[in-house]
Order: sequence, then structure tokens, then C-alpha cells
Amino acid sequence: MMPDPHQLAALDAADPLASARARFLLPEGLIYLDGNSLGPLPAATPALLADVVAQEWGQGLIRSWNDAGWIDLPVALGATIAPIIGAEADAVVACDSVSINLFKLASAALAMQPGRRTILMEAEDFPTDAYVMQGLARIAGVTLRRVARTDLLAALDDDVALLLLTHAHFVTGQVHDMAAMSAAAHAAGALTLWDLSHAAGALAVRLDADGADFATGCGYKYLNGGPGAPAFAYVARRHWERCEPALTGWMGHAAPFDFAADHAPAPAARRLLTGTPPILAMRALEAGVATFAGIDMMQAEAKSRDLVRLFVAGAGGIAGITVDLLPVGRHGAQCIVRHPQARRVMNALIARGVIGDCRPPDAMRFGFPALTTRFADVGLALAALQAVLASGEWQDARFAPVGKVS
Amino acid sequence: MMPDPHQLAALDAADPLASARARFLLPEGLIYLDGNSLGPLPAATPALLADVVAQEWGQGLIRSWNDAGWIDLPVALGATIAPIIGAEADAVVACDSVSINLFKLASAALAMQPGRRTILMEAEDFPTDAYVMQGLARIAGVTLRRVARTDLLAALDDDVALLLLTHAHFVTGQVHDMAAMSAAAHAAGALTLWDLSHAAGALAVRLDADGADFATGCGYKYLNGGPGAPAFAYVARRHWERCEPALTGWMGHAAPFDFAADHAPAPAARRLLTGTPPILAMRALEAGVATFAGIDMMQAEAKSRDLVRLFVAGAGGIAGITVDLLPVGRHGAQCIVRHPQARRVMNALIARGVIGDCRPPDAMRFGFPALTTRFADVGLALAALQAVLASGEWQDARFAPVGKVS
Repeated sequence: MMPDPHQLAALDAADPLASARARFLLPEGLIYLDGNSLGPLPAATPALLADVVAQEWGQGLIRSWNDAGWIDLPVALGATIAPIIGAEADAVVACDSVSINLFKLASAALAMQPGRRTILMEAEDFPTDAYVMQGLARIAGVTLRRVARTDLLAALDDDVALLLLTHAHFVTGQVHDMAAMSAAAHAAGALTLWDLSHAAGALAVRLDADGADFATGCGYKYLNGGPGAPAFAYVARRHWERCEPALTGWMGHAAPFDFAADHAPAPAARRLLTGTPPILAMRALEAGVATFAGIDMMQAEAKSRDLVRLFVAGAGGIAGITVDLLPVGRHGAQCIVRHPQARRVMNALIARGVIGDCRPPDAMRFGFPALTTRFADVGLALAALQAVLASGEWQDARFAPVGKVS
Repeated sequence: MMPDPHQLAALDAADPLASARARFLLPEGLIYLDGNSLGPLPAATPALLADVVAQEWGQGLIRSWNDAGWIDLPVALGATIAPIIGAEADAVVACDSVSINLFKLASAALAMQPGRRTILMEAEDFPTDAYVMQGLARIAGVTLRRVARTDLLAALDDDVALLLLTHAHFVTGQVHDMAAMSAAAHAAGALTLWDLSHAAGALAVRLDADGADFATGCGYKYLNGGPGAPAFAYVARRHWERCEPALTGWMGHAAPFDFAADHAPAPAARRLLTGTPPILAMRALEAGVATFAGIDMMQAEAKSRDLVRLFVAGAGGIAGITVDLLPVGRHGAQCIVRHPQARRVMNALIARGVIGDCRPPDAMRFGFPALTTRFADVGLALAALQAVLASGEWQDARFAPVGKVS
């Protein structure tokens, strides 16, 4: 059922997060519903980066490692990400990519569980998680077991060293109960590693409170750090002493500038660092994370869920579009609706100024980040989708799939 | 012996690379001799990055993965780095850090050498190389053997799967003969992995011609990509089909946007990619690599060697400074001179506007990148060093060691 524009306007007027949109530079006239894939440009980023380049790098040169605090940036930035994901400051660092952090953290978990030889994960999770675990399983000589979402609990046998889970599913937006799954894993003697790529900045994640062991997630989606921004990595305090990833490097050393012959891990999450941190990307991520200043993540999660529910309910009434069950309970800030020619329909929608993306074979994905999305955007996006379907314009040759990234 | 200023002026006047200095924004009045640690800011970088941020990210948003070519940037950038290191275009990608690439490439080498269980490296190499190999050896169940530089050839027994070498030593600037060491390794049945961190952009590296198997190196030193810039990774054509790192990710998949369940490596060096590429950092590296346009690396290597020889010869005549043997043959673009209170002397030198760095316990390190260093700079740096020593000002309390980065 299409939402009433007056109702949407009233929701925007009452939205306590409405002012956050002014923290971003959004292209005029565009309905951008792909912040779940690439967050928009924060208003503060261009000037911050220009200063980092011209002053910190150009003028300060090598001195900026000390004078501008570059050397501690991964830790300082981790501390600002920590409250967004319900973690204490020293448990989080900003570094590398999700793929690489998954490898590091899973290898650390395996080393802590010498009697167990299985990594368990959900078969329908984001494929890179599987690719990374396949590589790790091969070199570590352990088994990767992938089962359906509904079979996870039953598969938690006494050989499972690690349960890898995605907090909000990358396609459907379905949310795992972190407290319940962590408790189940621990009861079975397994550790948990959470992929927060579609959760950090979207959900009120509570890593510490919900018993997570390890976690990583994206800097370039809801955290607005820019394309390919550094990821973050988390390790719970109770594992700080024993956490020793197989993949390491001098920045994770207790005293990197002693140039000691042997590796000795740094305290807390700092030991998760590897090579020299990418300062320009770190500074951009800093500006992205700063867009969450003063944001209540419970409010943000609730707002996105309302947006998602309005959108899915509306899309379900459009001829040609099918939707899965209306989300109940917690849900990621993105959702999918389906069409057999999803790529063509999405291309036609983009031509009308509404940007989402696709996931094969038939899902069109739309994201509703709480900081940038207006309730009115839901109405405008639905109207555009209805027009694309009603006109049949998606069948036009110019909307045939092109490009490498879908 | 201190060089004659007229001789230095004549060398600058005759220098075919002198015009390259205008490609950089160097702080007025500073003698920057630490480009071996962090390359200076290219003149083109600020405007390029501002455009990437405002246009490609801010306006193009998610569409820029196709429209601005972001998705192919690691491969396109690798192809521009390739000629600087004597490699064919498809053999190089820009990605991750040196630490991470060392892990990836060494893990691939181990998998290609199933009957061999030893990684051999030089004991005095950059410590992160050892830390990475320690972690890899632990998870792969192989042995890491570290021997003195002079014992490397004798240690090449039939259990060595991989010989890890640094082309130009990070402290001394000593150069390994890549062709000879590769041939010796191959004769013993071992593969070679070259750390080019202090060689790429400094030496006329010839990876393909000299028989290297794998290599990685820094983007933020001589390649001028900015602090913590992405590294690069190389795999020789003869290994493209069999090279399968244990650390992988969706960007190294043959068809990442098919979201296939199982990993299938991409062609050539593209298979070395892992997570989503850091676009802002990649674009900055692109501008850094572009400073090498039209540069003959044989000329660059020869110029830096001349600068190093003049500097070491001059420093050897300064009371209080000791130098190792004057470099003969090939040499990195950086060198060291020694003082028992290296950190204090360096701090005093920096206060006089001459920037180098230190490596414990007693080495002061100076870099002479061919694109930015004038012969006159050698004279000015030596005069400042002589003044610091002659005055005894380095004993002043304000020059006591501070800061985390030395």
C-alpha cells in the first residue's frame, strides 16, 4: 500500500534525526538509496582532506607521524567507532579491509581453540566471507562448514572452533540475535566472529553486552568513510591477552620502532594492526564517523526500520514487484524487493534519479540510512518505481545491463 | 671530504632529471632527505584528490565504481607501476600493505612447494618481514629460518620453499643481485619473494628479466603515494595459473559480482586482490606514480648513487661521525652514517631544517630520491651536520628523544 504523502511529511517533521542530513553533501534532486553500499560525502570531508594533504603531508612530511598523531590514528579512530557498535574504546581499531580482518580474527580464534577443527558459517552469507574462510581453512588445515541459516544452531557440535555470522544480512537485511547466538556458540564451546558490514551505523549493535568475541565491519557503508575506506576490527577484552592473529605486522607490535627481531603483540586491539596505516583514507573515515556525533543508535535503528517497512509495504502493491514477508522485529537499514529483470528495472529507476543496486538473480536493494534518508524519499522512490513498471520503460534497450559492478 | 660547492652546482646544471623536482610541492627552505620513508607531496595530488572527493564520490556516488573506473583501479595502477619495477603490466596490482602482500605471496609460494617446509630470510631484514613470516610459519606449520646475509646461499637446502629477500636493505641500502640470487634459489628448487620497499622508484629494478617469482613494495616511499599509500604486489607470468594465496577476497575473484559460493581466482595478478580497494588512497598513489612519467630508472639509480657517495664521503670527514665502507657498485637511494647519540644529532639537524631519520642503535639515515634531491642539497646537509657536531648543540636538552616514531 502506497504511503500517504501527508503522513510522510508528518513523520519527517517529527523526526529527531532529521537535522543530521545537513552533515552531508548530497547531489541535488537525487534520491540516494544506496548508502548501504557507499555512504554519501560528509560536508566536513573535503576541507579536512585538503588540509591533511597540503599541511600534514605537504608541510609536515615525515614529522606528522608524531606531530599530527598519524601513528595513533588507527587506535584513536577505533575509539570513536567503538560507541557506535557497543564496544569499549580499546577493543576496536580501524585497519585494513573486512576481508583481511576476517582472516586475522578467524586465525586468532583457531589458535585459541586447538582441539577444534571446524569453522561454521551461514551458506547464504556475503561470498567474500566464504572465500576468506576457504583460504584460511586450506592453510590452517581445518574444515569450513556452510549450512543454511536455520541449521546453524544444530550444527554447533564439539568440533566447531568458530561461528562466523553476519549481524544484518547483506541482501535481506535479516538480523541475527547477537546475544542468543553468542550464548549458543559459547555453550557449545565455540567462539563467535561477527561481520558487521551492514550493521555498523545501521543497528544499535551491542558487541560487549551481547557477548561477541570478535567482529569486523565496513568503513565505507553506513560509516560514510568514502569508497573502500578502512574497516574496523574488534576483540573482546577477555581475549586481549590470548588473541594472536596469524596475519600481523610491525604496527601490531608492542614497540614497532624498537625494530626487535621477534614479534610481540601490542596491548588490546592494537595487536590487530598489520602494516603502515593509510592516513588519507583514515582521515576521511574520521570525518565519516564524526557524522554520528550525538546520534542515538536506538533511534537510528528504529527510524531505518520504519523507512524499510513503509517502502516494502508500498512496493508490495506495485504490479510486477514481489516482496518477501514484511520485516518484523529488528531489521537492517536496507531491504530488497524482487523483479525477474531486476537489473533493467534498477537501471530505469536510476535514470529517474532513484539510486539503489541489485543482487542476483532478482533482488533490487534499497538502503535507508537514518542520517540521510527522509520519509518523503520513500514516497518519491515508490512513485518512481511504480512509473518504471507501469510504463514498461525498463524494457528499453538503454536499460540493458552494463558495467562490472551491479 | 666535503664536496666543492662549485662541483655540486655543476652537477645540478648537468642533471638530466633536475626538472622533475618541479613535479612536487616542497616546503620552502627545507632539505628533505627522508623521501625513502615518506615521499613528498606531488604538485598534482591536491587538485586530483579534491576532484575525486567532490565529483567521483560526492556526485557520482556508487555509480563511480563503473563510471570513474574505480573497480579496475588496482589493476590500472599496477600497470603504471609495472615499468618502474621492470615488470609486464598484468603482473602487478596495487593493493593492501607490504605486510599483507608478503603474507599473501609467501602463502601462495608455500602452496606451490608442497614437499618443502622452510622459509628462508635474512636475519637483519626489516622486522615486519620477520613478524609476518613468523605468523605465517605458525599457521602453515612450516619453519622460518633467519640467517646472516653472507650465509644465505649456503642455507639454500632442499627444504627451502621460499627465499625472502629485500632488494635494497632498509638501513644500509645494500643491494642484492636479483638475477644471481634468483638463479641460486631456483637451482636449489626454491622460489623468491622480493621486498622492494626501498627499491621501487629508487633502483632500476628488473623483476621479469632477473627471474623474480614474487614481489611487493611500498607506495608511500619513492613512489610518492602519500602516508600509508597502498602497496603493490607482483607475480611472474609463469606462476599466474598456480598462484593461490591463502589470504584472498572478493576482489580477487574471477567474477566478484556473480556472488558465487566458491572462490575462483581472477586472471594474472588480479587474483592477489582481497577486499574493496581504497579509492582515495589509490588516486593519491596514481598521482605519485605519475611523477615517474618519462623517467629513466637507470638514470635515477645512477643519480641517487652519486648523491649517496658524495654524502657518505663528506660525512666521513666530520669529527664524531663514523661511516661504513663507501658504497661500491649498486646501492639504494638512501644511506646511513653513525653517531652514538644518533637520535639527538638528528633532532638537532631537523631543527636546522635538514630532515632524515634514525634506526637503532646508532644509524642516522638519509635518502636521496633522484626526482627531488639536488646535488646542492648534499652540501647544505653536510654543512648543517658539521655545524651540529662542531657546536655540540645536539647535547642540548631540547634534542632529547621524543615521539613514538623515530
